[in-house]
Amino acid sequence: MTSPSNHLPLIPENVAKAHALIKPYIHHTPLLTNTTLNTIASTPQHASDLVGSHWEGQNPASPRIRFYFKCENLQKIGAFKARGAFHALLRLIEERGEEEVRRKGVVTHSSGNHAQALALAGKTLGIPTFVVMPSISTPSKIASTQSLGAKVVFSGSTEPERTAVMHQIQQETGAIFIPPYDHPDIILGQGTTGLDMEAQYEELKGREGKSLDAVLTPVGGGGLNAGVATWFSVPSKEGKKKTLVFGAEPSFQGANDCQLGLAAGERVQAVSTKTIADGLRTPVGLHNWAVISDPSKVAGVYSVTEEQIKKAMRLVLERMKVVVEPSAVVGLAVCLFDEDFRRKVEKEAGEAGWDIGIVFSGGNTTVETIGALFASN
Amino acid sequence: MTSPSNHLPLIPENVAKAHALIKPYIHHTPLLTNTTLNTIASTPQHASDLVGSHWEGQNPASPRIRFYFKCENLQKIGAFKARGAFHALLRLIEERGEEEVRRKGVVTHSSGNHAQALALAGKTLGIPTFVVMPSISTPSKIASTQSLGAKVVFSGSTEPERTAVMHQIQQETGAIFIPPYDHPDIILGQGTTGLDMEAQYEELKGREGKSLDAVLTPVGGGGLNAGVATWFSVPSKEGKKKTLVFGAEPSFQGANDCQLGLAAGERVQAVSTKTIADGLRTPVGLHNWAVISDPSKVAGVYSVTEEQIKKAMRLVLERMKVVVEPSAVVGLAVCLFDEDFRRKVEKEAGEAGWDIGIVFSGGNTTVETIGALFASN
Repeated sequence: MTSPSNHLPLIPENVAKAHALIKPYIHHTPLLTNTTLNTIASTPQHASDLVGSHWEGQNPASPRIRFYFKCENLQKIGAFKARGAFHALLRLIEERGEEEVRRKGVVTHSSGNHAQALALAGKTLGIPTFVVMPSISTPSKIASTQSLGAKVVFSGSTEPERTAVMHQIQQETGAIFIPPYDHPDIILGQGTTGLDMEAQYEELKGREGKSLDAVLTPVGGGGLNAGVATWFSVPSKEGKKKTLVFGAEPSFQGANDCQLGLAAGERVQAVSTKTIADGLRTPVGLHNWAVISDPSKVAGVYSVTEEQIKKAMRLVLERMKVVVEPSAVVGLAVCLFDEDFRRKVEKEAGEAGWDIGIVFSGGNTTVETIGALFASN
Repeated sequence: MTSPSNHLPLIPENVAKAHALIKPYIHHTPLLTNTTLNTIASTPQHASDLVGSHWEGQNPASPRIRFYFKCENLQKIGAFKARGAFHALLRLIEERGEEEVRRKGVVTHSSGNHAQALALAGKTLGIPTFVVMPSISTPSKIASTQSLGAKVVFSGSTEPERTAVMHQIQQETGAIFIPPYDHPDIILGQGTTGLDMEAQYEELKGREGKSLDAVLTPVGGGGLNAGVATWFSVPSKEGKKKTLVFGAEPSFQGANDCQLGLAAGERVQAVSTKTIADGLRTPVGLHNWAVISDPSKVAGVYSVTEEQIKKAMRLVLERMKVVVEPSAVVGLAVCLFDEDFRRKVEKEAGEAGWDIGIVFSGGNTTVETIGALFASN
């Protein structure tokens, strides 16, 4: 894969180039609106909802919010990860030639959506793909990665065990490592989500002058957030208002490593959390951190509780009739429940309110998982 | 409401008129395709799936099926019922004048989607709306009907108890009865689903000459099926192939009253079933039966088991990422699991296969209901 010293700079032009490369291979997912969710978000929380928080006793904020939901849960393999995987593999082929990449193959480690994304990209482009998965992974995830043609190789669950297996595969086959998030090509690929959102929003509004006021994406490894922030880092046309990009994380057991890192002025390097938002259990990557910690690119990172994630997920399933995984709704949960964010919108937007883009990052869950999440509510 | 002797004939022209009337008030719901479901439907079932059925020991059918899913789960109030309710109310206003209808109001009995549909139509058009609901109804359904501005009046759960309460309201207020399904105006309103599907299919295919080969809808009271069959009863343009309309029902505890009635040559007048497809527990209405029992309009009615409904629902939630209620997937379940239907497609369509429209009739369920449905699987 592109060496760090040789990678494309993280600028909007390179997101546009990534978009041109991957467009034939990805779905054009819809940008949905929903009146009910706008109404809920634009209604102040109850005073009782603030009890126990540092806003207790204050008047709940009264922001005006109109949502634009980018449904990457309807993307190929059910998550935005298809964008980065296709881009990384297509760039690799551009750089090293198809013959070499086909002979060596590619390898990654993932028990989640990146595994299926790379498997699909490999299958589509005819490149042998190895995926190292912990042997304790969910059988359905193993099966679906295999059904996409990838060779799944099992490892132990720890980082050193995983790395050992990956190195062995690389020694035997020469397979080239495609990381799940910490690489410029992955970031640029995920950033195409922002480009699509902007274009779809403009089409919906019927005039090019208007910008989304803000976009919120989940932050796990940070590929999606850094990519979208890269796209929106400079207004795409002169005279357009800059779209602010925010990150959202679960707060459970330190899963808000990005938020904590920003507060401390230093990237958090390890995270150990069992948050229900299982796509967001990883620490932010190095390349990703460089973007996200730049306040001219990412305007802030917020976090939400497990209960708030479940409330948001319920609203999306029951009101919007759309299936999302818990990781997908952290941005919506921030808009609905985080008083800091809601006060910010009220103060900065006033009567006019904000048009807020929310990335539903993925929809890979099962009816059993949904049942278990809401069993005790 | 229009008296039976004075109603509009059930012909395609009147579906088109209904469409013009209700169009400003309803959502234009998407017509979705899904490669994974096409593949599953076009793969023969396992021989073991046929064990215990009258196809046991035979080769499973090998039809080719391409689906077009009409997402009325994304319709206002989460179900196609909004179409019929708006049409019936708008027709009533046309006929009796806005002043009279506003003074008297309208009344219905329903614990399901029709209650919310009429409540929304009444609220939108400024007509007082009374809904008689059994006092044991789900609190969330009572609340959402009330939140749409309808006055909910409680009754006992039996038919005579319900009717008594309704008559009392009518005596006190003069409110006009809008039945849930057994009326031509309701049937014509629901039939606009077929008109939309045909237009969207043509748009998708990019040429006007091609027709959907078949459309399957659920059959409860029969408003949707009879309406859609009315629309497709005559090809909309000369030289177009006629689209065949089929009905689908649950088989549990005689919920397949329409299928049984057709076999016996007589409408079944009462049904008592606890099928999970709770929108389909009612017997087919009289006006509805007149259409559905006409073989030139409805080409057949099939039924599926509770397990098959759950399997289809799982596929829609997990693969399409779309939330549907159990009633919504009976048509899909027929295409996936009913060997009679699958053999018919194989035989009639051969290598070319069929383009089949499926109406996802509604999406009003809860995460708890989903959890309970799949808890023991």
